Amino acid sequence: MSILLSGRWEAAERDQWLALLRAALPEESWVLEPGPEVEAAVVANPPPGALQGLPRLGFIQSLWAGVEKLLADDTLPAGVPIARMVDPAMNEAMPQTALWAVLGLHRGFFEIQAQQRRAEWRQLAQPRAGEWRVLVLGLGELGGRVAQLLAAQGYAVSGYSRRPAELPGVRCLHGEAALAAALGEADTVINLMPLTEATRGFFDAARLAQFKRGAGFINLARGAHVVEADLLAALDAGRIGRAVLDVFQVEPLPAAHPFWSHERVTVLPHTAAQTDARSAAALVAANLRAWRAGREPAHRVERDRGY
Amino acid sequence: MSILLSGRWEAAERDQWLALLRAALPEESWVLEPGPEVEAAVVANPPPGALQGLPRLGFIQSLWAGVEKLLADDTLPAGVPIARMVDPAMNEAMPQTALWAVLGLHRGFFEIQAQQRRAEWRQLAQPRAGEWRVLVLGLGELGGRVAQLLAAQGYAVSGYSRRPAELPGVRCLHGEAALAAALGEADTVINLMPLTEATRGFFDAARLAQFKRGAGFINLARGAHVVEADLLAALDAGRIGRAVLDVFQVEPLPAAHPFWSHERVTVLPHTAAQTDARSAAALVAANLRAWRAGREPAHRVERDRGY
Repeated sequence: MSILLSGRWEAAERDQWLALLRAALPEESWVLEPGPEVEAAVVANPPPGALQGLPRLGFIQSLWAGVEKLLADDTLPAGVPIARMVDPAMNEAMPQTALWAVLGLHRGFFEIQAQQRRAEWRQLAQPRAGEWRVLVLGLGELGGRVAQLLAAQGYAVSGYSRRPAELPGVRCLHGEAALAAALGEADTVINLMPLTEATRGFFDAARLAQFKRGAGFINLARGAHVVEADLLAALDAGRIGRAVLDVFQVEPLPAAHPFWSHERVTVLPHTAAQTDARSAAALVAANLRAWRAGREPAHRVERDRGY
Repeated sequence: MSILLSGRWEAAERDQWLALLRAALPEESWVLEPGPEVEAAVVANPPPGALQGLPRLGFIQSLWAGVEKLLADDTLPAGVPIARMVDPAMNEAMPQTALWAVLGLHRGFFEIQAQQRRAEWRQLAQPRAGEWRVLVLGLGELGGRVAQLLAAQGYAVSGYSRRPAELPGVRCLHGEAALAAALGEADTVINLMPLTEATRGFFDAARLAQFKRGAGFINLARGAHVVEADLLAALDAGRIGRAVLDVFQVEPLPAAHPFWSHERVTVLPHTAAQTDARSAAALVAANLRAWRAGREPAHRVERDRGY
């Protein structure tokens, strides 16, 4: 009886995970190739088909928070529970990145850094945080934490989610009409939605036209949420004042992509929140032990909603 | 009987203050030139000598938080109480700036923005906030707030002050031996000390040699705290990994100054925390009314310590 570790990664990264998982779960036998003895799989975007034909497979644990690539594999065995990673290091890092980007937009630090390259000394307006409206799209584990951290810093925070939500200090919205109104008054919009068929290409020309003129856009979720050509056009038209982008249609972002050199785009190399292998291995261990003991694993994916 | 408004500023800025102060204190008579009827003065780095020979002068309120230039005027009448500005807008803005700079150093965002200019996609290490030691020098109104905000974000925070202090969640230190040890282990050092004869030129080659190799340095206090040639040498030697500087020996920073183009220096145009004239005018009104009523004004300066 064994656990399969499968992903698309470099050998060094795989070996680091294997060492940490073996240390966290010394009672289990770990394998790197599928076989009839596999009872559970720990995966990081495994190659399509990697999990088919495993008669004993009873549980799949993703090492990543986003599982849209995993769920897109038609050969994924039906009925096997899947859990995704909700790592305390990611839960800490994502709000840090969001706060850094919001501070940079609100206080003009991106603009001031551009001024420095021209040796230009110029102070900008200093609105109070309570005069700065931030809209967080997606109020899941990460979006909810981001919204609450920003509210705690005094920002005027709205949150949008598909289903009604309640968060202390956050004006929570749902429904298309409320979304359009909220986009029209937000100084900064942060995307933290899951990537599903409903949200793919969400930020297209029509949606971007709903933004307040000159608003900042921060994408910390998935590149496929954004129609990149439409975002470029909205930036060049001044509809979007600045974009801080951590994720892209193609990653790594190709060297010739116009985002790299756009003066009002900040490119982050998908680093808003990296999984910390140390804390993640401990969570995998806890979840596998829960499953072995017949308990419900934490952060189970609902396949029909896609996350 | 009247109140003198005196500063070194543009007419437009002076007129804005005058309008706000008149609205906040309609019962007072305001003048822009010294005269025997002046009973109190509201000042923003007034010209030397501006406050001498005023027989009825009983109270001086500074519009700025730093009063070292005011106190350096030998003609300042002895015995007249002076209060400095502690503005809620500044109290909010300074911790924002400090947090933005610490996040940029801790999470590598300055380096990532430099990578962008080379179209380089490279993730950096993501230490936990609790693994990142920040040392705040100066635990006054602003330094204390900065230290506590950083501690609330999970950073490992030490604070140094001339006199013993206590702040929840902050390891408070005083004394030269403790300072040298704290500098040697801090990943990021923030200067928020007052400028006095004891702290002028504080960051010289000998002090910078006590920093942990590659540490970040954030100066949000006064340019005269730093021996700029020594800081440049420490940056070039790699002793200091990056400097985020809001204040300089000469402001505006001269166009030919090497800080502007140094790849590991971030130049802010003395914008870490600007006084908000709206909230500051309300505080001036409260302090003048307190003085009129014979009560102790808030944030009174101790002339012998220099702040």
